[in-house]
Amino acid sequence: MSCRLVATHFLVSIFLIALFTDFGQDGLYVGQLHAVISAALPEINVVDLCHAIPQHDIRAAAYLLPAYTRYLPPACIVVCVVDPGVGSERPHATCKADGRWYIGPDNGLFDVLEQHAHSFRKYHFLWPGKVSDSFHARDIYTPAACLLTESGKIDVLQAQPAEPGQKIFSADLNKIIYFDHFGNAITGLRGSSIKAESKISINSVSINHARTFSDVPKGDCFWYENANGLIEVAANQGSARDNLGLQLDDSLDLV
Amino acid sequence: MSCRLVATHFLVSIFLIALFTDFGQDGLYVGQLHAVISAALPEINVVDLCHAIPQHDIRAAAYLLPAYTRYLPPACIVVCVVDPGVGSERPHATCKADGRWYIGPDNGLFDVLEQHAHSFRKYHFLWPGKVSDSFHARDIYTPAACLLTESGKIDVLQAQPAEPGQKIFSADLNKIIYFDHFGNAITGLRGSSIKAESKISINSVSINHARTFSDVPKGDCFWYENANGLIEVAANQGSARDNLGLQLDDSLDLV
Amino acid sequence: MSCRLVATHFLVSIFLIALFTDFGQDGLYVGQLHAVISAALPEINVVDLCHAIPQHDIRAAAYLLPAYTRYLPPACIVVCVVDPGVGSERPHATCKADGRWYIGPDNGLFDVLEQHAHSFRKYHFLWPGKVSDSFHARDIYTPAACLLTESGKIDVLQAQPAEPGQKIFSADLNKIIYFDHFGNAITGLRGSSIKAESKISINSVSINHARTFSDVPKGDCFWYENANGLIEVAANQGSARDNLGLQLDDSLDLV
Repeated sequence: MSCRLVATHFLVSIFLIALFTDFGQDGLYVGQLHAVISAALPEINVVDLCHAIPQHDIRAAAYLLPAYTRYLPPACIVVCVVDPGVGSERPHATCKADGRWYIGPDNGLFDVLEQHAHSFRKYHFLWPGKVSDSFHARDIYTPAACLLTESGKIDVLQAQPAEPGQKIFSADLNKIIYFDHFGNAITGLRGSSIKAESKISINSVSINHARTFSDVPKGDCFWYENANGLIEVAANQGSARDNLGLQLDDSLDLV
Repeated sequence: MSCRLVATHFLVSIFLIALFTDFGQDGLYVGQLHAVISAALPEINVVDLCHAIPQHDIRAAAYLLPAYTRYLPPACIVVCVVDPGVGSERPHATCKADGRWYIGPDNGLFDVLEQHAHSFRKYHFLWPGKVSDSFHARDIYTPAACLLTESGKIDVLQAQPAEPGQKIFSADLNKIIYFDHFGNAITGLRGSSIKAESKISINSVSINHARTFSDVPKGDCFWYENANGLIEVAANQGSARDNLGLQLDDSLDLV
Repeated sequence: MSCRLVATHFLVSIFLIALFTDFGQDGLYVGQLHAVISAALPEINVVDLCHAIPQHDIRAAAYLLPAYTRYLPPACIVVCVVDPGVGSERPHATCKADGRWYIGPDNGLFDVLEQHAHSFRKYHFLWPGKVSDSFHARDIYTPAACLLTESGKIDVLQAQPAEPGQKIFSADLNKIIYFDHFGNAITGLRGSSIKAESKISINSVSINHARTFSDVPKGDCFWYENANGLIEVAANQGSARDNLGLQLDDSLDLV
């Protein structure tokens, strides 16, 4: 009963809905999420935070999510959907982490967020009514985010605190989890986990630290803590991916 | 005269402008449409519904348009531009289909919409004033959508009911018309046109039906009615396009 | 002291923030700019004008900027970021050109704009406070644009008129500076610099003028003044880039 009370009294004040998916910005899917929000909450702000998660790559999303939402204002909700199990029995979750709300399938997406957050609660909810079997982002998670935003009460989702379960992903991962548009290689390691004077090694190549791009000669590779707190291997005006022949999952070692 | 009266008294109430083009989301063109809208109607909601229609592919747009706008709220207008004949004499059209408005070049784009809609009217209009010869989306269709939205009257476009003409595209097409970001192959066939127990065949490969992705083993291909009502060939966590060597225009047969 | 007074009394009235970068629309970066704006100015309109500048290509941005912002309403500010020198000592600039505001790194980005504008002023400003060394678009230029918008006074940035300096880019450039999504080749030449009856030549191939795409047979190449005033080599329903084997930096000659 106490759990239920917690949920009932939890007031939510949201002015921003952020979208974080593997749908690709340019296609048939992101626009439909915007249309759902626009119909339900025409006044709300909506931000396409990222739709470039590699397809079905829950791991990339899990490590990027806390880093790339930590600059969002509080009073936002992030609709997070990387959902290869869409239509199957995985639970629907909404979380509150450090003042921000998140909603999406509970398939590991929130594991890293939970371990990095100072405060974290996760709820599971059921979604009554008829929905498609293949597009829960549009038919469940986005409408649920709108409902939460509009009502201001977690109770509207009939959400129940989730039982603590086994996590799929640890708090840090010394591997390349994502390449950005410039060919920079982002890892699952936080900057706080490694000293600036360290050398790191990837695929037997040793890489020095630099403060930022313009501190090394054009084309040279270096590592640094990126603007979102993750260790990244980059090249000044070049592609670290191409220069070093990097691939997703390559390991990074301290030397 | 009765037609004219119909047009004059047709009140329009629009709170959402949706964009549907082959411009590519990321480039020099979509932003200019937003700028036009922002200057004319700073309060209106704008949704990038799709800018990923293959270049100049009127057919793909024609079959996707009714399916991917049927979840839009009523009281919207869709600016539809796939316009290889820009600057030539094709008419400018605005249509009302099942309560939603559409505007764009009358080059076949609205053929399938007309056949699927329960109610449909098409008007032609002239656009006075100086415009570029190569960017009518910015210079005609988007401003006309804004004018229609602002005035609330179709009459503002001096629109006349279009004479019924020959259609280029039929109501359904048993071919692959579009590949999405995941490699799913979308056809021009509605789900209602085929029974769930059917097998289909593409390029002599027989494909079973499944309810959704997670109902088949990882990598396996299946067909299903997608979340927008079209028959789609997909693979669980894989690319049907790559797995089956599919191409645009490949035919789908019932077996 | 007179410069200082000019700055103090310069009232700014902005209702639109436009973004113009080399970040790629779909990735981890554009969404963060939107989030910053959304938190500071939830009511402002934001337009993604272009995020498809080739990476680090200041020249492409410099020539495209005046052409692709001249249709923006006045009372806007364009956040322009192509910034390979991020974290180094290049000045932060804000400019007013023909009634519109621009803000970004002073690395040549505003050179062509200055030469095309009828009225132009450039200011340099310092940004106090802690910022990342690698993402000044998020940490300096976007917040500064918000501050300027909110306060309505250039003085809020403690901006000082910039000393006239050497320009990197001239007013026109007879080279291909950008390929769009369709394979059209955009040059740094304004339409006013070349007569419509001229033939041009690229890579020893002579190319005729046409008014627009539909005026030449399908697949044929032609040149024209595009809808933003720049000379462009294009193909009707084809890719001029592929048909003519064009590359960035190819020169265009009058013949």
